[in-house]
Amino acid sequence: MSGRFITLEGGEGVGKSTQIRALAAALTKRGVDVVTTREPGGSPGAEAIRTLLMTGSDDRWDARSEALLFAAARADHVARTIRPALARGAWVLCDRFVDSSRAYQGAGGGLTDADILTLHRIGSEGLLPDRSFLLTVGTDEAARRLSVRDAAGADRMGSKSADYQARLSARFAAIAAAEPDRWRVVAAEGAADAVTSAILAELEPWL
Amino acid sequence: MSGRFITLEGGEGVGKSTQIRALAAALTKRGVDVVTTREPGGSPGAEAIRTLLMTGSDDRWDARSEALLFAAARADHVARTIRPALARGAWVLCDRFVDSSRAYQGAGGGLTDADILTLHRIGSEGLLPDRSFLLTVGTDEAARRLSVRDAAGADRMGSKSADYQARLSARFAAIAAAEPDRWRVVAAEGAADAVTSAILAELEPWL
Repeated sequence: MSGRFITLEGGEGVGKSTQIRALAAALTKRGVDVVTTREPGGSPGAEAIRTLLMTGSDDRWDARSEALLFAAARADHVARTIRPALARGAWVLCDRFVDSSRAYQGAGGGLTDADILTLHRIGSEGLLPDRSFLLTVGTDEAARRLSVRDAAGADRMGSKSADYQARLSARFAAIAAAEPDRWRVVAAEGAADAVTSAILAELEPWL
Repeated sequence: MSGRFITLEGGEGVGKSTQIRALAAALTKRGVDVVTTREPGGSPGAEAIRTLLMTGSDDRWDARSEALLFAAARADHVARTIRPALARGAWVLCDRFVDSSRAYQGAGGGLTDADILTLHRIGSEGLLPDRSFLLTVGTDEAARRLSVRDAAGADRMGSKSADYQARLSARFAAIAAAEPDRWRVVAAEGAADAVTSAILAELEPWL
């Protein structure tokens, strides 16, 4: 069995980490060697960079420095965690990857989507997932989930306005639409079990 | 008086930091508003990244992650320290800049000189010095100075073999030769005072 690189993407509060856990359990039961990871982070070096990114004041980094730090963390994560796991035949389930940088950072600070992809080429030799799932929830549901999360406190990447979240969702949708072979869009409003089943159904041909 | 961006480049032990101090003193005496700085570092964010780069084991970062971290530190340094100083009319004297990345990092790990310059375009909008000085010493003198420094302990970027230093010198020489308008090559074997005078003579037209 060859390794598979699978990412879950989407705005905040769409249930990515819940789904990663459920998918890992289901795939492990099917005999798959599963590695779960997340960005930014996923390797010791990338976690150190994550600390720089997630702590401090909102204006600690401008958009350019931030994009380079995300790309540096991703390069380390790819070289030290993802590629070795794929090489031994594991399935890698990753919570956010380069498409989150494209959706979040490509939106401002003078950086283009092409710039983000160029950083990914230089840092990670352009590694792309075999399959990316975009989890979507309606605007009202996303706002409700975020308000629950905000009450627990937000970090430097923390929650922004509903308007911002709507623009972010639109950018994710555009990124997915441009590469239909790689992407599957999954409505994630319903019960978590149903969402997991929908994702697993898409992965069935590889099992 | 408009701001000037001046960098000192070269291998280890050629006297860059000594010259920066002497130049700053001489220019200040002439009434110039001088800012001295160095890479990696030179701003709070860049200093935090410097700590990641300079500490830990030799293989803490691969060449790609390291190049992105240097570019991220430089982007913060340019945005937070260098551009504001130039905007108010100061002369910025900087110990190492993008040409050090080109000479050190462009040499291995699958990265090309074009990649390093692309990272600089994305991170720092391609800012280049108005004048760059390449300080050179002969192989024997460099080895002698490095042996003194090594006795005091080296960091993660610390001293490598004489052969490595010779290749590095050759790369700096090639970078300088390709842009003769920006570069001045200064033989730095003699007394520090004489080297300072040679550099000041080149800056005289701006004074």
